[in-house]
Amino acid sequence: MSVPDVDGLVAAARDGDARALARLISLVEDVDSCAAEVSAKAARACGGAQKPYVVGITGAPGVGKSTTTAALIAHWRARGERVAVLAVDPSSPFTGGALLGDRVRMQAHATDGGVFIRSMAARGHLGGLAAPTPQVLRVLELGGFGIVLVETVGVGQVEIDIAAMADTTVVLLAPGMGDGVQAAKAGLLEVADVLVVNKADRVGADETVRDLKRMLTTAQETTADGTSDAVGWRPDVVRAVATSEGGVAEVAAAIDRHRDWLGTSGEGVRRRHARVVAEIRAVALGMLVARANLQVDGAPELVELAGLVESGELDAFSAARQLLAASG
Amino acid sequence: MSVPDVDGLVAAARDGDARALARLISLVEDVDSCAAEVSAKAARACGGAQKPYVVGITGAPGVGKSTTTAALIAHWRARGERVAVLAVDPSSPFTGGALLGDRVRMQAHATDGGVFIRSMAARGHLGGLAAPTPQVLRVLELGGFGIVLVETVGVGQVEIDIAAMADTTVVLLAPGMGDGVQAAKAGLLEVADVLVVNKADRVGADETVRDLKRMLTTAQETTADGTSDAVGWRPDVVRAVATSEGGVAEVAAAIDRHRDWLGTSGEGVRRRHARVVAEIRAVALGMLVARANLQVDGAPELVELAGLVESGELDAFSAARQLLAASG
Repeated sequence: MSVPDVDGLVAAARDGDARALARLISLVEDVDSCAAEVSAKAARACGGAQKPYVVGITGAPGVGKSTTTAALIAHWRARGERVAVLAVDPSSPFTGGALLGDRVRMQAHATDGGVFIRSMAARGHLGGLAAPTPQVLRVLELGGFGIVLVETVGVGQVEIDIAAMADTTVVLLAPGMGDGVQAAKAGLLEVADVLVVNKADRVGADETVRDLKRMLTTAQETTADGTSDAVGWRPDVVRAVATSEGGVAEVAAAIDRHRDWLGTSGEGVRRRHARVVAEIRAVALGMLVARANLQVDGAPELVELAGLVESGELDAFSAARQLLAASG
Repeated sequence: MSVPDVDGLVAAARDGDARALARLISLVEDVDSCAAEVSAKAARACGGAQKPYVVGITGAPGVGKSTTTAALIAHWRARGERVAVLAVDPSSPFTGGALLGDRVRMQAHATDGGVFIRSMAARGHLGGLAAPTPQVLRVLELGGFGIVLVETVGVGQVEIDIAAMADTTVVLLAPGMGDGVQAAKAGLLEVADVLVVNKADRVGADETVRDLKRMLTTAQETTADGTSDAVGWRPDVVRAVATSEGGVAEVAAAIDRHRDWLGTSGEGVRRRHARVVAEIRAVALGMLVARANLQVDGAPELVELAGLVESGELDAFSAARQLLAASG
């Protein structure tokens, strides 16, 4: 493959060339290629430019993340914002995982130059969230987007990861299964800056909203002794019916309210700093892991060591130590 | 803290002392302690002993994993099996995350000497599944359990991880949200050896079962060209109402059927070998990551480097490289 012209791609992406942007993201996703060069040149090109506001959207499969994302894009476009979507979600229509007609809802956006949509594979990386997400966010800065929306699926680690990366984290629920109590059990309330009860025209929506508000009150009382970072912020609980765009303006308003709070409270600066620290650490760890993986892959020692562990002659720690020693 | 008497604990655990077993698991979970010593001594003590059969149970929050787990324990106990449960699930009553009355259903098992229950935190580790899970499984071999049941929550990475670690992976669904199509979208069908439609007395159960069977047929046709490891195995779709123990014998029978297939097809040996390879790699990576984390934590260089990245003077890759260089 020919050596990519990173400088040319960066310049083109700055001029709004979506193909150049997509190519740069592919380059930065592949740590074995010129990811470092792309990252460095993108950082230099952006300099002190306005960073996009990062909104995370998460929730269990079936709660309507893709529909809500599409409706939010429409809302922000009407406001004149340029919007990028990063879908780290195997079930998202953006990532080609759609088995239903979700994709149809996106087609209007797909031909809009003010919207950039990109999917990322979440699997096969350490951590639920695709490892190079911070670098991809950085490349997206080249595109001059006002808002980057990161859509993730899952319950657990992925939410924690996205919350660490987003300015505002929106957690979607639906009445019935995956309701308030389940959300609390799964730790979703801890990461939510905005809570959306989607499919609010369904039976049980009132109960879900009531449960959530009650649990937020309890959580607030629990953290009033200063044990939580989020003291001072109480998530809005918004009802929505995203399929008919009902409540979407309210969701956007709740995001804006949280954004204002981040600004006035100083929490926004703190989050952005923590995010950069986490990014550097992740890249450093990725470098170590990549090195180790290269050394380990296909090593005949590994097959032999595995045999010894299987037969009980060796334990995994000793095997790992021998493996690292053998691969230098 | 005093130096633990690992030899004594290993001997006691072999004699059925649950407290000794619990203590060893705590030691093996903490990589900064004598995890390597515990792992080595547990491996030596077990030698060529019969390994417990590992069953993974997974599904979205609210589908009834804990109830099904409790019912399966009762079923296996009636059969005379000793059973260990490893709950890697923040929403599990086993891990103390229960907000409802789930815990009540477990109390009968909690006082049964043939049942060992252990929770593990899934968070804060690289990867969805708690990193030392393979080591914990190895320590559990000391307890002479016939079956180890690993309960995980989540959609995505965690399922993939548990599937890599279990002999049989049971995926739970419920009618309505989280139904067949959503499961397929989330990649759950790919990892399922047994599919359970729980809450099968609810509206929509027939449709969910039908959807699943149809999708399995499609998947089977797709993989008939040999692109899948699982060629030759077609997951059972079992209906259950775990709250009243309905269908639980059928779930256990489906697990047995898969277990037989693993034996006759040779797939079981292949899976166990792949699991040991993955375990050694994970430990090796963990050693590298632990080393890097120690070097990185509290490094004043990190704060300074983060400032440079924030202002756009430096990119994350260069910062990471400098950090690794500085920390030796």
